[in-house]
Amino acid sequence: MGAKRRLGVGLMGLGVVGGGVAEALLNKDRLLAEEIGCQPELRKVLVRDRAKRRTVPVDTALLTADPEEILGDAEIEIVIEVIGGERPALEYIRQALLRGKHVVTANKEVVAKHGAELLKTAREKGVSILYEASVGGGIPLLLPLHRSLLANEITTIYAIINGTTNYILTRMSGEGMSFDVALKKAQELGYAEAEPANDIEGRDAAYKLAILATVAFHTIVRPVDIYCQGISRLCEVDFRYARELGYEIKLLAIAKQRAGTVEARVHPVFIPREFLLAKVDGVYNAVQIEGDLVGKLIFYGRGAGAQPTASAVISDVIETGRAICGGEQRGTQSRPPQTMTIRPISELETRYYLRMSIADRPGVLAQIAKILGDRSISIASVIQKEADDATQSAEIVIMTHPARERSVQESLSDMEGLSVVREVGNLIRVEG
Amino acid sequence: MGAKRRLGVGLMGLGVVGGGVAEALLNKDRLLAEEIGCQPELRKVLVRDRAKRRTVPVDTALLTADPEEILGDAEIEIVIEVIGGERPALEYIRQALLRGKHVVTANKEVVAKHGAELLKTAREKGVSILYEASVGGGIPLLLPLHRSLLANEITTIYAIINGTTNYILTRMSGEGMSFDVALKKAQELGYAEAEPANDIEGRDAAYKLAILATVAFHTIVRPVDIYCQGISRLCEVDFRYARELGYEIKLLAIAKQRAGTVEARVHPVFIPREFLLAKVDGVYNAVQIEGDLVGKLIFYGRGAGAQPTASAVISDVIETGRAICGGEQRGTQSRPPQTMTIRPISELETRYYLRMSIADRPGVLAQIAKILGDRSISIASVIQKEADDATQSAEIVIMTHPARERSVQESLSDMEGLSVVREVGNLIRVEG
Repeated sequence: MGAKRRLGVGLMGLGVVGGGVAEALLNKDRLLAEEIGCQPELRKVLVRDRAKRRTVPVDTALLTADPEEILGDAEIEIVIEVIGGERPALEYIRQALLRGKHVVTANKEVVAKHGAELLKTAREKGVSILYEASVGGGIPLLLPLHRSLLANEITTIYAIINGTTNYILTRMSGEGMSFDVALKKAQELGYAEAEPANDIEGRDAAYKLAILATVAFHTIVRPVDIYCQGISRLCEVDFRYARELGYEIKLLAIAKQRAGTVEARVHPVFIPREFLLAKVDGVYNAVQIEGDLVGKLIFYGRGAGAQPTASAVISDVIETGRAICGGEQRGTQSRPPQTMTIRPISELETRYYLRMSIADRPGVLAQIAKILGDRSISIASVIQKEADDATQSAEIVIMTHPARERSVQESLSDMEGLSVVREVGNLIRVEG
Repeated sequence: MGAKRRLGVGLMGLGVVGGGVAEALLNKDRLLAEEIGCQPELRKVLVRDRAKRRTVPVDTALLTADPEEILGDAEIEIVIEVIGGERPALEYIRQALLRGKHVVTANKEVVAKHGAELLKTAREKGVSILYEASVGGGIPLLLPLHRSLLANEITTIYAIINGTTNYILTRMSGEGMSFDVALKKAQELGYAEAEPANDIEGRDAAYKLAILATVAFHTIVRPVDIYCQGISRLCEVDFRYARELGYEIKLLAIAKQRAGTVEARVHPVFIPREFLLAKVDGVYNAVQIEGDLVGKLIFYGRGAGAQPTASAVISDVIETGRAICGGEQRGTQSRPPQTMTIRPISELETRYYLRMSIADRPGVLAQIAKILGDRSISIASVIQKEADDATQSAEIVIMTHPARERSVQESLSDMEGLSVVREVGNLIRVEG
């Protein structure tokens, strides 16, 4: 083993994920050498603060605060980027590729926003950039899409792909917790950050969906193409109605492809309780993919955390290492990317759950039904609960048949103009 | 496109799966050409009866009943074997490899029993044999294990991997159907064969488990190494008790690896109802894999059927085609197979559900408890239902704490010798 050629590796970032990667690289060095055919050698680790005390048993002599020590080291052939965030990670990755280094990254934001450019640079320089860890933590998703499912036209992606929000929704649904309390619990357990907006507002899920849809549909879907709505408006009462109607509420990342057009959106969704996705609880992720041949597939696992993410990063390092050391030559052939039109959310056609508070007086439901009917929105069912005497208002819930988003939004504006409508509580799209 | 080099393909078998593969090859010829880099050309199809009427739109001029027309055709570089069964498929595959042809097969029996030999032959001849479709239909399993999960030591496999039995169990559990009625329904719907023993007795699941465990554990697990028990002894009453106790009954294929030893077994299992695997219904398959880094993963999808199986076969054809046409060179490096000891079922340690019919008279439970206690089997809970006056017998159900299989079987023999034990109804292992 000692005689084996050494493979220089540079690690950028030594936070939670970086620590997991460093640990796996060190603990599994024999396994890695066997799988790759040469011995990976961690030569440098980029950190912000060299003096900070760390639990990872990395030789402090390897730590550096200067990216140039990695980017400029000719012995380093693979750069692992696990800093996260758009900047400065993007520039480091770009520089690594331009200097002929292979890159493995877990950075969903960089890949979602700049993947096409980086892949082009990599191709021009004859190196690779792999990013399995950027979506779904340790769940194998991109490799199966890139290879195992090639015979399929992928038509649909339904993904529970943000553990923070799924944890919050699980507690809201299971225990009747309010959003604020559930978020606080998530923060206490380290499942949500102190600044949780990126997760709560669905942006994190949108980055991951952009990556998944780009690979699955052989086209380019960018974060700006994705309609995005978070979970902070969901109330306890929505979960109660969902249960009553046979649904569960999940934050889904959804992408569909048909006839050269793509729709991509992240928002809370009513899904039937008997769907397997409705049963995915806590911080777990699950990605449902439908292809014309294979039908419905689900991939389920831990979507975050040091070790699952390290699992994906290290497997990409092995892939890359084999290409470098084993003389493996990747076939570059693949379907040319297709140009697809992004369908705006206003053209979405789906079913809707609508909850509102109305004046408890005769004829109100008729007024609301007329507004919907005038825009060809057909009502599937109505629940009207007994009125609250004190406020003289009643709560009604309407489930529609499939309707056009634009018409629904216009109806909503009209209703908000009615004096008898006290408040539109929530509008939630229904799938399945 | 027309100028592209042609890639000769021979198809052996034109049954349900073969028809799906032929259809996909013909319908997706443009996609295949783009992905592979040269145009696959179906040159010959081996069938038993050339005159039989078929619905697949394959040019009848391609049909042949003589395997030599494929094996001896120098233009055929990839042989797809979807005949199924051990013979004559094994000999065809062996011959194809020996004559330097790449092989793609969906044949679980051949791969489970002869995989090691065939892989060796392929290596010697510089060709490949791929078999993603042999396990789990279209669900990507072998490629993720071979590549995405390489950084992990896989410790556990729990697999619902036979659609026929899962369909039967789903109906027995959901509708209180008897085994015989549920089997008949499955046969009417084409989910079970007229001769269902291979599925019902767990042999089909054992073949697939042998393949999965061999790949996951980097060792050789053969069908004869796998303890195998079918579902025909399950009664309605077992499902009732399962529900009462918070469990679901599934036929699981289980393999575990620790400290250089492997256990592998297929039998009915009580699993907690809240486990996601307990919620996998009907003909769907699900494979749960646990790795040291990645934690728990589940892969879910259709485990059989023409199109899902074709999805896996065609993706293997693309992989193979790229290697041939794109000059892709596979890194041959990988961990050397480990020698592991197979642990016999008698050494299994797990929990047990035991249902028996006993004489309704004082002191009987004490006698049974003593037999268990004498062999250090500890009782976790007992359910005794009111006695049946007519037969003067009562039914009791015992759940044990973890116990050794050998001790449990010995206790069972002892109990069967007791005059007060009318009948041992069922013994079912408990997981989770």
